[in-house]
Amino acid sequence: MRALTVRPGTAGTLAVQDVPDPEPGADDLLVEGLALGVCGTDKEIVRGDYGWAPDGPDRGDRLVLGHESLGRVVRAPADSGLAAGDLVAGVVRRPDPVPCGACAHGEWDMCRNGRYTERGIKQLDGYGSERWTVPAQYAVRVADHLGIAGVLTEPTSVVAKAWEQVDRVGERAWFEPRRALVTGAGPIGLLAAMIGVQRGLDVHVLDLVADGPKPDLVRDLGATYHHSSIEEIARTARPDVVLEATGVGKLVFDAMAATTPYGVVCLTGVSSTGRRQTIDAGGLNRDLVLENDVVVGSVNANLRHYRAAADALAAADLPWLERLITRRVPLEEAAAAFEAGPEDVKVVIELAGSGERAGRA
Amino acid sequence: MRALTVRPGTAGTLAVQDVPDPEPGADDLLVEGLALGVCGTDKEIVRGDYGWAPDGPDRGDRLVLGHESLGRVVRAPADSGLAAGDLVAGVVRRPDPVPCGACAHGEWDMCRNGRYTERGIKQLDGYGSERWTVPAQYAVRVADHLGIAGVLTEPTSVVAKAWEQVDRVGERAWFEPRRALVTGAGPIGLLAAMIGVQRGLDVHVLDLVADGPKPDLVRDLGATYHHSSIEEIARTARPDVVLEATGVGKLVFDAMAATTPYGVVCLTGVSSTGRRQTIDAGGLNRDLVLENDVVVGSVNANLRHYRAAADALAAADLPWLERLITRRVPLEEAAAAFEAGPEDVKVVIELAGSGERAGRA
Repeated sequence: MRALTVRPGTAGTLAVQDVPDPEPGADDLLVEGLALGVCGTDKEIVRGDYGWAPDGPDRGDRLVLGHESLGRVVRAPADSGLAAGDLVAGVVRRPDPVPCGACAHGEWDMCRNGRYTERGIKQLDGYGSERWTVPAQYAVRVADHLGIAGVLTEPTSVVAKAWEQVDRVGERAWFEPRRALVTGAGPIGLLAAMIGVQRGLDVHVLDLVADGPKPDLVRDLGATYHHSSIEEIARTARPDVVLEATGVGKLVFDAMAATTPYGVVCLTGVSSTGRRQTIDAGGLNRDLVLENDVVVGSVNANLRHYRAAADALAAADLPWLERLITRRVPLEEAAAAFEAGPEDVKVVIELAGSGERAGRA
Repeated sequence: MRALTVRPGTAGTLAVQDVPDPEPGADDLLVEGLALGVCGTDKEIVRGDYGWAPDGPDRGDRLVLGHESLGRVVRAPADSGLAAGDLVAGVVRRPDPVPCGACAHGEWDMCRNGRYTERGIKQLDGYGSERWTVPAQYAVRVADHLGIAGVLTEPTSVVAKAWEQVDRVGERAWFEPRRALVTGAGPIGLLAAMIGVQRGLDVHVLDLVADGPKPDLVRDLGATYHHSSIEEIARTARPDVVLEATGVGKLVFDAMAATTPYGVVCLTGVSSTGRRQTIDAGGLNRDLVLENDVVVGSVNANLRHYRAAADALAAADLPWLERLITRRVPLEEAAAAFEAGPEDVKVVIELAGSGERAGRA
């Protein structure tokens, strides 16, 4: 079968190559790969800036790329609750082998020792192949009607975790948020806005662009699109919650200062180090203290968040979800998926042959 | 009776003056004032930089100062659970009159609209008088054996709240902290360290000074005193929790970077605005996100925290608590309490006449 591979640490090594078919173990699902979402982490790996190949001989230091998965079950263990024909998405991270206390409790997204592994990123082959296997306990069912939009399960899991973090830190005392600001209208920001609207919040989204598909995607959710400044939104919309999805240093600190008292800022954007910035450290600290504000970082997701993501997608407007997928690239032309297009929101690589394209299955 | 008053907004107005005796309402305790703790907020008010006098005619814009209280009940409502002779401390903040959702739920420490009032600080006379009244529901009983150390109830309530915040945000997922760093060995830092030790944590305290009473106070708790850098402690002690009690901008940001993965930083120090600082904003954001870290600001306290404070003090080593009170000043010499002494930890103004000094009662 064909797989999308890369040699982590070396730019220019992305390739579609023949690899042996996977052999499912007794507890594994055998899955026909349908689609693969491409995100910033994948681009970092393709540039040679991130990622680790699995150990083992004859690997040639190659990693099968891809962690935003969608597939159709070919064969499932009898007691797995899944059956041939079901749409599924695979979980990315696996617990560290020690395990740390968090991993021992199924919360590998909160791993303490960094020895976790990740499909398509860190020491485990990803989901970028025509067939793949996954332990049934690390797969979630995706609603049949979603079709290719089910490939949004993994990014939605990241957002479902972020919202859970907002709830859990918010609920340390009385908490009834009404207004949320999402900074950044990429896939994470848009999916965060979608869940915010599902929760009945008055959602505001801030991005730089005034054209392309993003403003309409936000408005069609019932949210408000802004391309002004965060200070302006802080004054007019007075958000109780800020979900930061850009990783831009200035926005991160502006977000901390933008909330109402008892504000919660959830950071989800992974930024580069070394972006130095001069801030009023005393004033920021004073605000955080006197307003009982919280800043919480959130990354990755565990099974609870994947299930919440599958539920959120199942409840969403399908045509809206399909509009997030702005470009589809066949596996043989996968390299094109890693070049940014001006109107891209989410680019997806289609893995199934022409006879079984996702969304038409 | 005599009271310690000040005209908020005007430096040099601190005075001991005669004021009418308070008249308790049906739900009030009548209390003989024993002692008053002095903190940074009191000093700000005395400097004319903070504070609001009560409204009303014939007030001359004067505020009775003092919010760290200790008194002995003279007369109590029958159903109050308190009786003449009990030691009590009064709660500082009262809910806003709207009230906001937090105040309506008894969580005035999380007030959303800023319209709360505060004894001795904001529109309500404080506890700096020979007699005072307080609604029985806004007083907590202090263990008899504590004597003058009961005056530490209010600062301990601030710390009890901070630890509660650490717990509640920590418990959003698996959380079993082992090592805590407290930055600053003033009263808040020392009381935070005391509660940390009571919780069985390995507690480290960082301060600038190498002499004076602080190093021994920390060591006698069973904690470790450092006057190195936070980076050094981060490497060697690897704290899961940082409780920041200085408000120094650099330390605040160093604290954010100092924790282990899933670290919790609780900020309690109120700093001045305008202290500008250049930081690696991208790197800090990246750390917070990839480590699932939290920064939570914490100020003030509600009744739950005062009760936790009274319990923590009752369980503490009394001679150690008494050593925190490094200077006692009689009411008639109260001005001296607002001048910093080189070995000060907590300075207390004694309100009772010579016949009934707290701690000898």
